[in-house]
Amino acid sequence: MLETVKSISDLKKLDVKQLPELCADIRAKLIDEVAVSGGHLASNLGAVELTVALHYVFDERDKIVWDVGHQSYVHKILTGRGENFSSLRQKGGLSGFPDCEESESDSFNTGHAGTAISVGLGLTKARDALRDDYNVISVVGDGSMTCGLTYEALNNAQASKMLIILNDNNMSISDNVGSATLNMSKLRVGRYDRNKEKLKRSLLRIPLLGKPTYRFLRWCKRRAKLRYVRNSYFDMFNLKYIGIIDGNEIKDLVYYLTRIKNNVTKPTVLHIVTKKGKGYFPAENDPESYHSVSGAAVNVDSMDSSVAVGDTLVKLASECKDVVAITAAMSKGTGLDGFKLRYADRFFDVGIAEEHAVTFAGGLAKGGLHPFVAIYSTFLQRAYDEILHDVALQSLPVTFLIDRAGFVGADGKTHQGLFDLSYLSQIPNMKVWTPSTYSELSQMMSASLSQSCPVAIRYSKTLSEDSREFTGSWNIIRQAEERRIVLLAVGSKMTEAAQAAVENIDGVEVVDVTTVKPLDGHYLDSIGNGVGVITLEENVLSGGFGQSVMAYFADKTAVTVKNMGVDDVFVAHATVDEQIRANGLDAESVKAVVNDMLKNR
Amino acid sequence: MLETVKSISDLKKLDVKQLPELCADIRAKLIDEVAVSGGHLASNLGAVELTVALHYVFDERDKIVWDVGHQSYVHKILTGRGENFSSLRQKGGLSGFPDCEESESDSFNTGHAGTAISVGLGLTKARDALRDDYNVISVVGDGSMTCGLTYEALNNAQASKMLIILNDNNMSISDNVGSATLNMSKLRVGRYDRNKEKLKRSLLRIPLLGKPTYRFLRWCKRRAKLRYVRNSYFDMFNLKYIGIIDGNEIKDLVYYLTRIKNNVTKPTVLHIVTKKGKGYFPAENDPESYHSVSGAAVNVDSMDSSVAVGDTLVKLASECKDVVAITAAMSKGTGLDGFKLRYADRFFDVGIAEEHAVTFAGGLAKGGLHPFVAIYSTFLQRAYDEILHDVALQSLPVTFLIDRAGFVGADGKTHQGLFDLSYLSQIPNMKVWTPSTYSELSQMMSASLSQSCPVAIRYSKTLSEDSREFTGSWNIIRQAEERRIVLLAVGSKMTEAAQAAVENIDGVEVVDVTTVKPLDGHYLDSIGNGVGVITLEENVLSGGFGQSVMAYFADKTAVTVKNMGVDDVFVAHATVDEQIRANGLDAESVKAVVNDMLKNR
Repeated sequence: MLETVKSISDLKKLDVKQLPELCADIRAKLIDEVAVSGGHLASNLGAVELTVALHYVFDERDKIVWDVGHQSYVHKILTGRGENFSSLRQKGGLSGFPDCEESESDSFNTGHAGTAISVGLGLTKARDALRDDYNVISVVGDGSMTCGLTYEALNNAQASKMLIILNDNNMSISDNVGSATLNMSKLRVGRYDRNKEKLKRSLLRIPLLGKPTYRFLRWCKRRAKLRYVRNSYFDMFNLKYIGIIDGNEIKDLVYYLTRIKNNVTKPTVLHIVTKKGKGYFPAENDPESYHSVSGAAVNVDSMDSSVAVGDTLVKLASECKDVVAITAAMSKGTGLDGFKLRYADRFFDVGIAEEHAVTFAGGLAKGGLHPFVAIYSTFLQRAYDEILHDVALQSLPVTFLIDRAGFVGADGKTHQGLFDLSYLSQIPNMKVWTPSTYSELSQMMSASLSQSCPVAIRYSKTLSEDSREFTGSWNIIRQAEERRIVLLAVGSKMTEAAQAAVENIDGVEVVDVTTVKPLDGHYLDSIGNGVGVITLEENVLSGGFGQSVMAYFADKTAVTVKNMGVDDVFVAHATVDEQIRANGLDAESVKAVVNDMLKNR
Repeated sequence: MLETVKSISDLKKLDVKQLPELCADIRAKLIDEVAVSGGHLASNLGAVELTVALHYVFDERDKIVWDVGHQSYVHKILTGRGENFSSLRQKGGLSGFPDCEESESDSFNTGHAGTAISVGLGLTKARDALRDDYNVISVVGDGSMTCGLTYEALNNAQASKMLIILNDNNMSISDNVGSATLNMSKLRVGRYDRNKEKLKRSLLRIPLLGKPTYRFLRWCKRRAKLRYVRNSYFDMFNLKYIGIIDGNEIKDLVYYLTRIKNNVTKPTVLHIVTKKGKGYFPAENDPESYHSVSGAAVNVDSMDSSVAVGDTLVKLASECKDVVAITAAMSKGTGLDGFKLRYADRFFDVGIAEEHAVTFAGGLAKGGLHPFVAIYSTFLQRAYDEILHDVALQSLPVTFLIDRAGFVGADGKTHQGLFDLSYLSQIPNMKVWTPSTYSELSQMMSASLSQSCPVAIRYSKTLSEDSREFTGSWNIIRQAEERRIVLLAVGSKMTEAAQAAVENIDGVEVVDVTTVKPLDGHYLDSIGNGVGVITLEENVLSGGFGQSVMAYFADKTAVTVKNMGVDDVFVAHATVDEQIRANGLDAESVKAVVNDMLKNR
């Protein structure tokens, strides 16, 4: 069936009765191909019927905004990108998130949670101002309902003709949290599904009268849901509410969406429940593990930073009662699951609410505890003001554990951790530490406990297994008797590139830069006139490590400093190594710069 | 009365009947002294009874967190800072916001909206973990209820024993917006007050029975409010709700606070209504103008950036239908009041919700409009991720109007605009323009309309009245025949300092840097070997303009670059000129650096 549907107009030619078969085909394709390419499997399996129904009912000119965007695979398959789907998340291939450059069917780039209603509102107001009449549909997961940005948008939505679909699968990435969001959907998929199925089965067993009765009851139910059901959460925002609908039941979806499209003139919420991982038993049973799957080649059992963080934090907590941990719907990804089990009362998952996570940490620290805030680099951007204003201003002892820093590979543009060195270094009172080995990471966590200021520890998903000590000074990992050039490298990938680059070149020292702020003045002062300095970082150049080294040497004109980093671009999906190469940070490129510098001395 | 109350323990010795007189004394002191020192008058007048009642009922070890913090003057007067109160907002004097360094009675530094409940939650959890038992009270204005951070905190508050006081004066800075926040308090101070007063007066007119009847009714009302009143907004968060209470009625406040302190064990919201500007008729009638008053010496009618912005935006809107404007509860401060009147349907005040303001602008731009987002520099920090992720990533044409950039004077540490050049320049696709005259500001706004990327226009409250053209290149405002030194100055204060510094020195060129990003490569390339370059900016050095100039000259070792800016500190309250001097950016300091550089050539 899927083979005959090459475009949305093909889809619209199908009878509604054919849609379940199409959904089954799409599901099979997802399971086959995402298992190889890697990506967000469970959420896309849950959203198959929703996506098919949306495109079946709405027009191509209508605008669908996918919150977060990791559930947009089915949308990509249906909008002409099915044949190219095996290139998902690969260099030059399809992005794992909506991308307007990739297709006109994508109405907005997304990646971080909670943006879709704001964006949808903007599109709506622009449409009205320009006297156009397309529909705007924001599809939001329940996880994004904990997000302040979503609330701010809902609070401003009252006068806008738009549709908000709440795709409720009873979990964001970890289990959902928050009283308001729990109250929002007290009916949950388990009991709802079971009762509905039971009723349907017993009715259909009755001869003759069974089927008409079932249909009549379904008609009543549908009318009631369209007209009379209310929900106190959305009432608060003066939004029309329709729900709860089984979001894996394609005929129901088509019914409701058709009626909404034709009749509703004010902002409307359609609340559906879907099963994450639907149709693929391993994913249904453990959707958190299947939230994002790696491609076939990756060994998931290997050591990574989250393991080091988890183990160290449990150890620190056993030694020091002040240690508490906070995450924002990322307890597994950041390695805190073990800590959570062991120290439930010292663990706080605030949901997708990075801003609150940080300000809350400020309060905890002021109250006498030592919080470790574990949030991925890209998501911590949300809390820039809170780090500055609620933690650093009072120099409160909070440790930030910033995973997925630097290049992140397949997640691409919206998820790169390429800004943190800049936005953190510019904040007064803040220390920025950058381990390149697991041993340094552990020791830094421990050392941060005795600091009377905030410490940001920033690291990539995997680090070097070399054993190096963290003393607060930089680690010289390749000493040169007579230094001609010094390579200052931040993080494991950059130290590795530096080492590989100069294997056969004499007089080049390689330094593992463990602290980006403060700089190691003792080491820098030891660099004599005539020595060349090259800095290497997985970060934008502007405001990064390199520029601070350059500023350090401002008065010393006889030292030449060359900065290597990301030059003012957003970096698209590819493997980490490909991204490193594309930005001229691989061993070959470093070697070329070293040789060039040696030649020009 | 106030003279006998030197401390909280003096206050506690008073009989509750004496408190109204104390409140009257405090009010008189506020009106007298804030009129001279400048500061937030209206909100403090409204909060007199609340603050007195809180300190009367609660203990000194209990922790009060003032959201935003501009309403903490009465708290400062009562906690030993009354005699020093005339030093408010002056160099070395009292801060206009809570400041833990100033007094142990301040439990947390605040300044930006929406932090108090997050902070209060942190203190609460720390208290419980450390087995202490102080009370935590977060005092939040209704304006902060539009704020995503407040929502995120409320959503996590369910299990914490703390008191949240919603101080509702029916307006944040401009009129309040948002459906949820309107629903939150449908009873409003106007009718509520009037009816209550009417009943009281008619009852007390009845001889003999009148007074007991009034008292009985009051008793009934108080019991009912403590036990039975519910509010759907706070119900949603599973919080105990008590309200609505007249927050300018000290006896009522003491009654409810005493009961709450002794009995309530779960998170509780006390909803009070207060009259902003209470007791000072000019402020009662026009609280927005009296939100923050300037000291006696300042002429409020003079030209400033907000006037230039307002006039230009109205003109652009009349010429171009795509122009729309967004602000976050700052329509007056950013100069949009005129635009709002003229183009109501193209004006959006989203409330204190900077994140939504920016993402919403992304949607508007994607939908074909050209949004101007007017937010003060310090508050725009909240939307760093949204600027990067929802606007710059797709290079959407949004113009940011960033007022109060650089040193802001009396508001101090929490309100400085000293980070924006760094956090904006590091974002790919972003242009950062920095006018130093009103004419440049206007022309930049106009020029931004033809850009196909986001443009941040960043300026201080006042600019130079000189007429200069904006062509996209830098403006040389003092040409040197034979250049020995080039001064690159960002913004009006820095160009003025540069001009004054070199009045009598030959061979020094002064440049008005109109674009921090991109740099004017044409001009920079014209700088020959041996010329000294000095950069001047009201911004932290890390990631600022100066470092990008230094990076530009990295390969040109014969050009010496010296950066002048703010060196990794938070800058406390003082006048702008004092702040400029304290950070070595005044004409004298610049002159010294110039002379030094000339000597060392």
